Amino acid sequence: MRNKLRLLTPGPTPLPEEVRLALAQDMVHHRKAGFKEVLHRVQEGLQWLFGTRQPVLPLTCSGSGAMNAALWNLFAPGERVLVVDAGKFGQRWGDIAQSRGLEITAIRLPWGVAVSPAQIQEALDNDPSIRGVLVQASETSTGVLHPIREIAEITKVRETLLVVDGISAVAISPCPMDDWGVDCLLTGSQKGLMLPPGLAFIALSPRAWNEVERHPCAVAYFDLLRERENCGKNQTLFTPAINLLNGLDVSLHLFRKQGLEEIFRKQWALTCMTRAGVQALGLDLMVKENYTWGLTSILLPQGMDGQRLLEIAARDYGVVMAGGQDHLKGRIVRLGHMGHVDFADILAGIYALRQSFKACGGHSGSRDYLEISLAAYQQALDHKT
Amino acid sequence: MRNKLRLLTPGPTPLPEEVRLALAQDMVHHRKAGFKEVLHRVQEGLQWLFGTRQPVLPLTCSGSGAMNAALWNLFAPGERVLVVDAGKFGQRWGDIAQSRGLEITAIRLPWGVAVSPAQIQEALDNDPSIRGVLVQASETSTGVLHPIREIAEITKVRETLLVVDGISAVAISPCPMDDWGVDCLLTGSQKGLMLPPGLAFIALSPRAWNEVERHPCAVAYFDLLRERENCGKNQTLFTPAINLLNGLDVSLHLFRKQGLEEIFRKQWALTCMTRAGVQALGLDLMVKENYTWGLTSILLPQGMDGQRLLEIAARDYGVVMAGGQDHLKGRIVRLGHMGHVDFADILAGIYALRQSFKACGGHSGSRDYLEISLAAYQQALDHKT
Repeated sequence: MRNKLRLLTPGPTPLPEEVRLALAQDMVHHRKAGFKEVLHRVQEGLQWLFGTRQPVLPLTCSGSGAMNAALWNLFAPGERVLVVDAGKFGQRWGDIAQSRGLEITAIRLPWGVAVSPAQIQEALDNDPSIRGVLVQASETSTGVLHPIREIAEITKVRETLLVVDGISAVAISPCPMDDWGVDCLLTGSQKGLMLPPGLAFIALSPRAWNEVERHPCAVAYFDLLRERENCGKNQTLFTPAINLLNGLDVSLHLFRKQGLEEIFRKQWALTCMTRAGVQALGLDLMVKENYTWGLTSILLPQGMDGQRLLEIAARDYGVVMAGGQDHLKGRIVRLGHMGHVDFADILAGIYALRQSFKACGGHSGSRDYLEISLAAYQQALDHKT
Repeated sequence: MRNKLRLLTPGPTPLPEEVRLALAQDMVHHRKAGFKEVLHRVQEGLQWLFGTRQPVLPLTCSGSGAMNAALWNLFAPGERVLVVDAGKFGQRWGDIAQSRGLEITAIRLPWGVAVSPAQIQEALDNDPSIRGVLVQASETSTGVLHPIREIAEITKVRETLLVVDGISAVAISPCPMDDWGVDCLLTGSQKGLMLPPGLAFIALSPRAWNEVERHPCAVAYFDLLRERENCGKNQTLFTPAINLLNGLDVSLHLFRKQGLEEIFRKQWALTCMTRAGVQALGLDLMVKENYTWGLTSILLPQGMDGQRLLEIAARDYGVVMAGGQDHLKGRIVRLGHMGHVDFADILAGIYALRQSFKACGGHSGSRDYLEISLAAYQQALDHKT
């Protein structure tokens, strides 16, 4: 039997047909008038999505590339940063900071736990030399949502930059950059934005730009000052990923027709739906509170072969989910509900989860798990307006 | 009147329909079995195209990103390199080398002139501390082909790495890396490879890898050692541009069906066709000898408005060509004949060039210019087998 493929990983995500058709367009030249219009429109859309009046610079690289760009532009070797290390991507902040030659103070948390604003406050009080806080809005390896708004309350009254990896947060849950006082927000194309990977986006606050202006970036490819200069002329510093930008033009158009509230309402409802279904199946949610809106992590019973579960779900039901990373490999399932995904995909996902769980020797849970999921979905839609 | 758009710039280039359909495919996950097969196939195809037994690493960035990667991995600050500065992209080598903290010896040449092997020999004889030669195979800003094979004869018997930007050369004119003794060959996706921009590829010789192993790369995004490790497992270090790699899988398949000889034969024939047509129109070729096979640069008469000429060609004939860069802005036309372009596109290009040239006050040239072009094309096809 050949089921449809349903990609329910926390990125890359399924693409809308309109975006796919845009990706297939024949090439145009990136320095000519027509494409400058695309870049202009895309810029307006990105500023709207990021909630900023600052330029949102498109970079041709993955999200990790934008993380590199942030640290190479904002800090000089020897400066100290505070890293929130609560998962694989928190560790990545640490790794990049280290390769950049920064001094690191780390808040190490068990995977699945969000940092508390008090921990940030304490670390900054203890060491006023800390120049920046590096954190994920959403830690994709676990599904934790860190309290960016509250952290910003702490950093914005100090000379400490708040640098936020919004890779699995932007266009998934609110993070209005200017309103909250985030100094650097970045994301990749393959999560909330309903695009293939290959583009990243980064925006800086005025005080973050002041830092950038103080020292030139040694990595020419990630020179944000020169990117900003080009952005003002509806260009990019280097030849950009043209077809991905054409796709972005379409996905932003789809978003603007809906409005931000509606995007977030859907993400919230899919999150509630997934969590309710998982619980109705008698499975354990890995993140009890402060959970992200783009994926749900499910703890498997001790001894169950999580890799086999994923293979069964993919082979027999066409549902592709992700497993855990590092010490969580085989121990959790990460069910993504971001990008071009709707309630029917999640129904398929929950059903595939149940069937593959049973095939691996798990118990069966409530018979009403699908109705319970849908009821949670509907309730969230009705109340979150 | 609405003519078809013909993109005759030296990158980006038109795309085959098969590639465009691959670009439009819905997303798959980059760490799952199906995509690993794509990466495996693509790796074999790239090694064939580069003429190397070393891994050819795909990077999600533009060609300039790969130039950054080369210098950050191969050299340490304070080491000296020889830069062949004969155009915009030679200058770019210099700029990146400078930002990397390298000491630079430059061979500065008038734009349109190729470096001679004797000049390289002399520079290396004068300063044995030079650790690398940075050069373009094809200088896209002018259309000059530097003598890579002859330069490699000089570098391979010394402790000097030959680092070649093959951005407008790979899949356009021969540059068999292992045979010639090139130490680093890199390219971008949007020139000979018939893909949109957004991917770059880099391969290193065994002795170049030795250099990389001696010092870790500070820019985590461009860590070639870790990329090589991932490549061996049919993965990439970071989330790659999946849809571009799917497109590459198709374009490499198209190339392999033809064979390298056939690819180069077509490129050579289109070059001969364009040059014959330009000369028959009484226009001046900017590069008299050592010209590249992917674009032809045409010098305009003093005082003619080259920008206007390009606008007329695009508006009235649908033919998009490129102008000059920097001091050549408005002074030359660069007619690209790389990527998915055939003789009929070049006929349209030559006709549009003639008509827009006349509209700008130019003379009309031979009445037989199209027949002359086609005869040169046919002759090249027949003799270059």
